[in-house]
Amino acid sequence: MTNTIILSDASLRDGNHAVRHQLTAQQIASYARAADEAGIDIVEVGHGNGLGASSCLLGKATSTDTEMLAAARANLRRSKLSVHFIPGFAKTTDIERALEVGVDVFRIASHCTEANITRQYIEHAKQAGKTAYGVLMMSHMADAAELLRQAKLMQSYGADAIVLMDSAGFSTPGDVAEKVGRLVEHLSVAVGYHAHNNLGLAVANSIVAVQCGATMLDACVRGFGAGAGNTQLEALVAVLERYGYATRTDFARTAVLAKVTESFLPVRTPHIPIANITTGVYGLFSGFVPHIERLATELKIDAFELCARLAARKLVAGQEDTIVEEAHRLAAEMNVTRVAA
Amino acid sequence: MTNTIILSDASLRDGNHAVRHQLTAQQIASYARAADEAGIDIVEVGHGNGLGASSCLLGKATSTDTEMLAAARANLRRSKLSVHFIPGFAKTTDIERALEVGVDVFRIASHCTEANITRQYIEHAKQAGKTAYGVLMMSHMADAAELLRQAKLMQSYGADAIVLMDSAGFSTPGDVAEKVGRLVEHLSVAVGYHAHNNLGLAVANSIVAVQCGATMLDACVRGFGAGAGNTQLEALVAVLERYGYATRTDFARTAVLAKVTESFLPVRTPHIPIANITTGVYGLFSGFVPHIERLATELKIDAFELCARLAARKLVAGQEDTIVEEAHRLAAEMNVTRVAA
Repeated sequence: MTNTIILSDASLRDGNHAVRHQLTAQQIASYARAADEAGIDIVEVGHGNGLGASSCLLGKATSTDTEMLAAARANLRRSKLSVHFIPGFAKTTDIERALEVGVDVFRIASHCTEANITRQYIEHAKQAGKTAYGVLMMSHMADAAELLRQAKLMQSYGADAIVLMDSAGFSTPGDVAEKVGRLVEHLSVAVGYHAHNNLGLAVANSIVAVQCGATMLDACVRGFGAGAGNTQLEALVAVLERYGYATRTDFARTAVLAKVTESFLPVRTPHIPIANITTGVYGLFSGFVPHIERLATELKIDAFELCARLAARKLVAGQEDTIVEEAHRLAAEMNVTRVAA
Repeated sequence: MTNTIILSDASLRDGNHAVRHQLTAQQIASYARAADEAGIDIVEVGHGNGLGASSCLLGKATSTDTEMLAAARANLRRSKLSVHFIPGFAKTTDIERALEVGVDVFRIASHCTEANITRQYIEHAKQAGKTAYGVLMMSHMADAAELLRQAKLMQSYGADAIVLMDSAGFSTPGDVAEKVGRLVEHLSVAVGYHAHNNLGLAVANSIVAVQCGATMLDACVRGFGAGAGNTQLEALVAVLERYGYATRTDFARTAVLAKVTESFLPVRTPHIPIANITTGVYGLFSGFVPHIERLATELKIDAFELCARLAARKLVAGQEDTIVEEAHRLAAEMNVTRVAA
């Protein structure tokens, strides 16, 4: 429980799948700025399938790789900028261009049994003085022993960390424990995990990965991501906090970050609304949400603060009238503050 | 792994929260018929807060309790009909009326520290020859020892099972393991679990409950339910299948059941679309979904069958052209069958 967990936010890369790779440079700029402010460690940017992947087969992106990366770069101060790189779609020249734009982290990915194709790209990024991760995609298609063999290859090429991707959202917590545990035990570099939520297990699988020694997690705000979406960042951070794991951000800041995407994230993307995560965080009855949302809007009060107060009073279902009472009290206090100011 | 897990579907009761208690008798009838056909064990029906709860404070229901129950009753053959009953909102006369309509299972609920108020209602249901469950709501607000004390009270009143509700979606898998495990160890009756998805942990918590000896799970289609929704039934069944637990239904049948709610379930209810659960079940790259959906519509082919074939070919990202090829092959085979028929 002592490690700080590194959060790699894939909203601007895996999330691009959710909008058929139509994220604009302006959307990327505004999100990158907000992610930097929220304390996200790494911001991953690009076409859903990574550098060089814009094509008729996989989907044409609105912006070029360089446009997307430059838009993010200009807005990141502390957060690192990363790219997803699949040999075949991407070539050495793509690394060169990414270096020019100022990419910090190269995530060199292969199908989980083909790590050998990543060698020259990992070495290239390392020789340029950058961070390189080896990423094993579709990790459910290989057993723990095979994944370890592949991960060791990437480690031998100089990868600073190995990330297991559950690209299909197929894995159960038991699968994750076995595979991540094996890598953590036998590798000398850090291990990361990238979940998808197809079976509703993304948050649980990510937590199990950390419990088994992973120190990096991928996530996307509002579950923004391919298919059922990735691990939802806000829920993940709330649960990491509950378990006592440190991150450079916190739930409230990820909630602010999620708000930035409201204008460009399709409503149908599966995600748990912030209001509902908030009641989960505070342990308030789920049926309170419509009441809290209505009162927060009507009285212009902070829904978080209202939830905190309702939780302090240990409110339970059937005491909905107390929500109204507490909301009005909060509004009155705020008015006093406003007048005094 | 030998028990058959009893599934209690709360879509028509907890799900009523998601539409502010506006489910109509007709919607209830159509869903109940589909649930019965899908092999759901128990169908729970009524106002979100249970019998007698329709009020200005909690929300006025469109239909009376009797109208809702009668609509379900007329369409259930093998599935049992159940009600949620919170003393205070509901009274003895509500049990009488429910008995007249033909309710099979009375879920008598109290706040997790107030089991003693359930006594007369559990006894009443039992004396009428019906099944009675004791339900402890907001179970995160009491520790395992206290929950066991309360559960034992309900057991002593004659409850056939005890259900722990995580009404706020606050609990982690560790919490669930401790609390459910304690009950299973010390009670002589069955234990059930009712999760909410506020922290994205509903499916994982439900599985942990079963691993710790629970034999009944509550769930709702499309996560339909209060706040962030309950455990999503379709995802839960897919994961139960993966773990080898038997139920009276299966993933494909729950997918058909979920379709029934498309016309009356609000789009913003957080849920994982069936197409995305399906790729998770088959272990296909999440980014395939838009391609699969488009081809299934264009060629009038079955998306499940297409997924099964793509999985058999162990397709990975970048092979999107093969989806097109396999879809056309499937369409051609179907045309041959149609001509021959």
